[in-house]
Amino acid sequence: MGLTVVGSIAFDSVRTPFGERERMLGGSAVHFALAARFFTDVAVVGPVGDDFGEDELAVLESRDIATGDIEHVAGGQTFFWRGHYEHDMNVAHTDDTQLNVFADFDPKLSEDARQARMLFLGNIQPDLQRSVRASCREAEFAALDSMNLWIDTAKDSLKAAIAEVDCLLLNDAEIRELTGEPNLARAARAAMEMGPKVVVAKRGEYGAALFSGDEFFAIPGFMLEDVMDPTGAGDTFAGGFLGYLDGRRAAGDSLSDLTVLRQGMAYGSVLASFNVEGFGTERVQSLTRDEIDQRLREFREITAFDADPTPAA
Amino acid sequence: MGLTVVGSIAFDSVRTPFGERERMLGGSAVHFALAARFFTDVAVVGPVGDDFGEDELAVLESRDIATGDIEHVAGGQTFFWRGHYEHDMNVAHTDDTQLNVFADFDPKLSEDARQARMLFLGNIQPDLQRSVRASCREAEFAALDSMNLWIDTAKDSLKAAIAEVDCLLLNDAEIRELTGEPNLARAARAAMEMGPKVVVAKRGEYGAALFSGDEFFAIPGFMLEDVMDPTGAGDTFAGGFLGYLDGRRAAGDSLSDLTVLRQGMAYGSVLASFNVEGFGTERVQSLTRDEIDQRLREFREITAFDADPTPAA
Repeated sequence: MGLTVVGSIAFDSVRTPFGERERMLGGSAVHFALAARFFTDVAVVGPVGDDFGEDELAVLESRDIATGDIEHVAGGQTFFWRGHYEHDMNVAHTDDTQLNVFADFDPKLSEDARQARMLFLGNIQPDLQRSVRASCREAEFAALDSMNLWIDTAKDSLKAAIAEVDCLLLNDAEIRELTGEPNLARAARAAMEMGPKVVVAKRGEYGAALFSGDEFFAIPGFMLEDVMDPTGAGDTFAGGFLGYLDGRRAAGDSLSDLTVLRQGMAYGSVLASFNVEGFGTERVQSLTRDEIDQRLREFREITAFDADPTPAA
Repeated sequence: MGLTVVGSIAFDSVRTPFGERERMLGGSAVHFALAARFFTDVAVVGPVGDDFGEDELAVLESRDIATGDIEHVAGGQTFFWRGHYEHDMNVAHTDDTQLNVFADFDPKLSEDARQARMLFLGNIQPDLQRSVRASCREAEFAALDSMNLWIDTAKDSLKAAIAEVDCLLLNDAEIRELTGEPNLARAARAAMEMGPKVVVAKRGEYGAALFSGDEFFAIPGFMLEDVMDPTGAGDTFAGGFLGYLDGRRAAGDSLSDLTVLRQGMAYGSVLASFNVEGFGTERVQSLTRDEIDQRLREFREITAFDADPTPAA
């Protein structure tokens, strides 16, 4: 296996100023895998209930995503989230959360999933992240996402989990909160001192920033006139970013090469920009690699400037 | 004259988590001019009181900034602002504002200032901006900055002023507020329909975005570990941006060339990054063109990525 992702599999009911949908396939592991599969082979690990059927499996399997580690909990219901967005689409308002089978999730990985070259620990309880990390001894590169809930309620466990991964992905506000450092660059350095070689700050519509050693790299968001539903954008970014990195790793490239990390950030941003153009996973489901590469070229076009000094007066 | 700027000349007393300073030279026209002068010749138009003396004039004149249109109001006091920043340096807290001579400012431009090739209307009452615009008939390119105060209290005047300029610079939240459009790309299009060919959204530490016709260009902020005082960053950005454009215009280049606008955005961002590294204008005062060009190269380095599709798996 190339890349194993552990995280939530969910049904999401979402309302935005542009429409609403009931019980769409969602969850961090699903959004992640649907983006990463463009670059590498992916296995999804997560629990589902009786309401998760052949149609949902087919969405993943028809895109060559390995589903053998999706654990069916008989008699249970799949994680459900209901939320809405007002005109400021940067803020999600939660109306209902039913953890269901996710509440007792205890990841058990198959030999295949365990032997992944790369591991993504989606946003779950930090002790579970640690146990998955420990079981994937082969993984050369592990990345972790988390959220303010775990910073507030399980900070020591979270720090221990962070110490065991190579890359930390968080929203910029969460990196500041985790480290108590208001300046993002300093906060990222403080997070690196906890263990990871690479820290990625997700900044919503403003893009993302990457820190590695003394280096950093920043990328603006791809500007869109039609944002339908931002749900899952962060996980889609992570899937594009890490999927791309794992593809490059498989091709023999080193992840200490900053140009590879930068390219991964650009692909992650492009995937996230497609994600928000439709509800749930619908836009990324129908996406082609050609569309991705076309938008990557546009993205470079709208962010590039000449660095040759052009003295004027 | 190359570039005339009309705006505030002020004394600022500022406290941040990293120190405090009393009565520093500041104001939008001052920050703007100290940045723009690296690229073109600049004239400052604005009122001062008896407390503005030779030392303050010397800061401008020693950097070849024309001060003949700085109007000394006998018996008056210069505009004074006192503010502070908490750990979130994106938010300025105003503790005291004394408009003083700025309250009755009625710009009267010399023939020299009137004949500028380019005009920057700093954030003042929109009807004054209109009267200055009307008096500078020679200006081929006029840009305008404003603030939420005028959107709230003088929206019709502001719209009339915007209709008469080529370029609108505002914070992204203000562009949204002005147009009632929550999506920034749509808000910028709506602002262009008011008249300007170019709209620039300032996004604080997240950088800036430029819209022109159907095109857009985004740039992240230059990441700094040591932000001392963000006061004046927006005006310094505008000075670097428009100063550079005016220098290119003087060299015969067209401002409809998007690559020129992009390069200007990069220079504006670099100037703003220096501004926040010191209190008030102190860092920009001591800046050299070599330092600017060096940071521009670094900035390109940390924002560039390869657009050639690199299929992986």
